[in-house]
Amino acid sequence: MRVMGVDPGLTRCGLSIVDGGSGRKVTPVAVDVVRTPPEWELAQRLLVVADGAEAWLDKYRPEVVAVERVFSQHNVRTAMATAQAGGVIALAAARRGIPVAFHTPSQVKAAVTGNGTADKAQVTAMVTRILGLAVAPKPADAADALALAICHCWRAPMLDRMAKAEELAAQARRRYAERLAQQRKAVSR
Amino acid sequence: MRVMGVDPGLTRCGLSIVDGGSGRKVTPVAVDVVRTPPEWELAQRLLVVADGAEAWLDKYRPEVVAVERVFSQHNVRTAMATAQAGGVIALAAARRGIPVAFHTPSQVKAAVTGNGTADKAQVTAMVTRILGLAVAPKPADAADALALAICHCWRAPMLDRMAKAEELAAQARRRYAERLAQQRKAVSR
Repeated sequence: MRVMGVDPGLTRCGLSIVDGGSGRKVTPVAVDVVRTPPEWELAQRLLVVADGAEAWLDKYRPEVVAVERVFSQHNVRTAMATAQAGGVIALAAARRGIPVAFHTPSQVKAAVTGNGTADKAQVTAMVTRILGLAVAPKPADAADALALAICHCWRAPMLDRMAKAEELAAQARRRYAERLAQQRKAVSR
Repeated sequence: MRVMGVDPGLTRCGLSIVDGGSGRKVTPVAVDVVRTPPEWELAQRLLVVADGAEAWLDKYRPEVVAVERVFSQHNVRTAMATAQAGGVIALAAARRGIPVAFHTPSQVKAAVTGNGTADKAQVTAMVTRILGLAVAPKPADAADALALAICHCWRAPMLDRMAKAEELAAQARRRYAERLAQQRKAVSR
């Protein structure tokens, strides 16, 4: 499974491509950071980020795009910009029929370091080790994009199993409710 | 000047087209609301909103797109969704070389009602009167999209004048600094 990891942002947007194999095997394919000047207008900055992501979608043809889910940040303006950068990339994937998955920062940290509150240095160190890289990826946005892709490779099978289990449970609940309704009808006759 | 007004949102996204004439003359051309089901995935919802906005950009060919600037809302998830819907529309405009302007809710309310803290009913009533509509536009998102376009028609000339005045002031400051530097050089000789 080829995954594109995205650490969304307008000033720096981390992009990565990772191939997930059987078990926990993950192979790095590419990593880069798209930058836009803070003094540019928002629409122009979104255009640069979208163009960068679309070029990668067309070049590397990932099967899924994993984007960091932004909940809140101290700076509301930064949080909005981050959400918008993630939004235009999700749109680019949707236009190509590529599914988009969102993972929270703590899910990503927990997946790669085993600790949902790990700091940036720990995440970078684990990403470097997991992918067997000779040097640590820089800046932090590049490492985060790789961490997102790794997180997706490892969480996706579990999420699939959970979705199937939930569907089976829902079917069982429906059958039980139907049987109960029939029995009640039989009793009330 | 033809303006497309956008009240961004994922559940309901208001779109409007208004032609601004000389003075405060504004003529309504079109208004609609794009809706997406809340249970759909984010990327699919963004795709529907973007497709809707792009169809309007191509059909009505506005000279500028005016989008409501989202600062913060009580619900962080809603604020993010709103920012993302506005982001994909700003991107669609940028791809067509159409400038995008942002106005805050209080700027919009102040422009159409004279009161930056007006409520939705007041905004709708003034929009209906300003545009000479037979019936009030519904839902509120449609009225807000019209209010945004009107706000832009009325604020744009003032914003242009302010930008020109600021440029003139900056030029005067530069000339003054140059003269001062020359005089200091002359004195120190």
